[in-house]
Amino acid sequence: MPAVCVIGLGLIGGSVLRAAAAAGWQAYGATASTADADAARGAGHDVAADVDEALRRAASDDALLVIAVPLTALDSVLRQIARFAPHCGLTDVISVKGPVAASITTRLPEARYVGGHPMAGSSTSGWAGGSAELFRDAPWLLVTEDDTDRAHWLRTARLALACGAEVVAASAREHDAAVARISHLPHVLAAVLASVGSGGGGLAMSLAAGSFSDGTRVAGSRPALVQAMCEGNRDELLAAIDDALGRLGVARGSLATTGSLAATINHGNLSRMRWTESKTLPTGEFRLQFLDPDAPAELRAIGEAGGRIHTIRGDVLHGTLPRRD
Amino acid sequence: MPAVCVIGLGLIGGSVLRAAAAAGWQAYGATASTADADAARGAGHDVAADVDEALRRAASDDALLVIAVPLTALDSVLRQIARFAPHCGLTDVISVKGPVAASITTRLPEARYVGGHPMAGSSTSGWAGGSAELFRDAPWLLVTEDDTDRAHWLRTARLALACGAEVVAASAREHDAAVARISHLPHVLAAVLASVGSGGGGLAMSLAAGSFSDGTRVAGSRPALVQAMCEGNRDELLAAIDDALGRLGVARGSLATTGSLAATINHGNLSRMRWTESKTLPTGEFRLQFLDPDAPAELRAIGEAGGRIHTIRGDVLHGTLPRRD
Repeated sequence: MPAVCVIGLGLIGGSVLRAAAAAGWQAYGATASTADADAARGAGHDVAADVDEALRRAASDDALLVIAVPLTALDSVLRQIARFAPHCGLTDVISVKGPVAASITTRLPEARYVGGHPMAGSSTSGWAGGSAELFRDAPWLLVTEDDTDRAHWLRTARLALACGAEVVAASAREHDAAVARISHLPHVLAAVLASVGSGGGGLAMSLAAGSFSDGTRVAGSRPALVQAMCEGNRDELLAAIDDALGRLGVARGSLATTGSLAATINHGNLSRMRWTESKTLPTGEFRLQFLDPDAPAELRAIGEAGGRIHTIRGDVLHGTLPRRD
Repeated sequence: MPAVCVIGLGLIGGSVLRAAAAAGWQAYGATASTADADAARGAGHDVAADVDEALRRAASDDALLVIAVPLTALDSVLRQIARFAPHCGLTDVISVKGPVAASITTRLPEARYVGGHPMAGSSTSGWAGGSAELFRDAPWLLVTEDDTDRAHWLRTARLALACGAEVVAASAREHDAAVARISHLPHVLAAVLASVGSGGGGLAMSLAAGSFSDGTRVAGSRPALVQAMCEGNRDELLAAIDDALGRLGVARGSLATTGSLAATINHGNLSRMRWTESKTLPTGEFRLQFLDPDAPAELRAIGEAGGRIHTIRGDVLHGTLPRRD
């Protein structure tokens, strides 16, 4: 029975603990939050007295360590791991991958580490908001570099699949650039739109309806979490904001000089339609022998094409890939 | 039985015809779309053979004329009205008010005209997408200037109330500035976000979920309609885009220099929370004698404070106003 030790039992970590336990893993964890620890114990889960104790146990079990704390708490947890469980294989569920890899290289240069990012969430936070079903059919990104430790990657991928997710492969940089565009920029634009709207005063707020409501929805998320997520991906988010500034500036210039927004509106519409259609594209199956030398590069190409792994048998990955007929 | 003649039987015009007929008005109309005309007749509605015939009949009935065509077709309809029904009282349901008022001043300088904008919609278009219930409890903006013809305003307001809406008063300029911020800018930002997202390639599109989906939803609307709506409000939309560009530039500068997005995220969150909370504020009742000399200015102040008219008895307007305890 494979062992997994989850550090941090908030929304994501708490859901990993529940899902792994339900899938038959020997799953235990710890958290600095007394409230989350009490709630997890109350639900019958195996929660250590403190993080140090959980790490000592993980070292003796050779458990897979899952770091599920906010980015701001990462360095402090890495110091504890260096002290109590320096040889455990590591993964994490933090929403940015480059900065986490950099911290681990600094603090635990010998560690076997595969970065992860389950793309699932909820408007709530803490243990209480989690569920064993949170990851069902969601993409769970695993960082897949050419020099990734293959055995450790496979163990981490098995955990993601055991939690009900499908695995998507990308490099850390590819991941961070992608989420800057489709997750972090949307939060920044929602905040900007909410502020421009409220700048219109009571009449604007009274007339605001569907398009304003949709466009500002994520501005209702907890500001501290949004800030940490966006600021942690600073370089890639700056590039995404620059792209948005450039496109918005072009729209402004075109409207001011020619009176037309055709290029902006048509390109946006085409992009949105392609995205919604991509969700219903027919899929084909692929299989990949993960120990082949070129497998990481092939797997990243599959991830870029929208492919996902749903099963692992031995060293062979099985998944689906959109089929463009 | 008051008479109303609706020119244009698409989503909004078709819903006005249905709602007015259901409320007991003598309601008839016409449209240049054979498909919409056939569908409306098939549903038992009184649809003239063509727009000219409907206008002749409106002239003989002294019907309230509702212009429900796209902004791009306005001038052609105004030419027909000038020829066949130059003395009818006019309103419209087009989403921008300054440019419509300017066209009417040019083509029908003697017309009694009160601009309108029911804030209701649907993702569908044409007669088939409409319903007698489309305006139920929605705000229906009526342009209320100091020199507005009071009797004609009251007749137009009675039509809006008969359709199930609540009337909100504002000047044309106030309306156009407000909708630029809460309706037209959201469409431009959604298009920009969709394009930035798709610029991230297949991986970004594969990982995109809630925040991207919400933020790009209205980019799925029919591009021609979005373009006409946004371009028709050019001056006010330019100001709203400039506000957004400025705020996004400040966010970019702050992230690049200090690493912080606190000001952007916190202000956006506060704005969104205030807006969602404003929908559940307790309300008080107001009443206003509309023939008082200062009534238009008072009514605009009420509109700015989030007030809405729900009943008209004689010349007295009754409505609700958020109560800030």
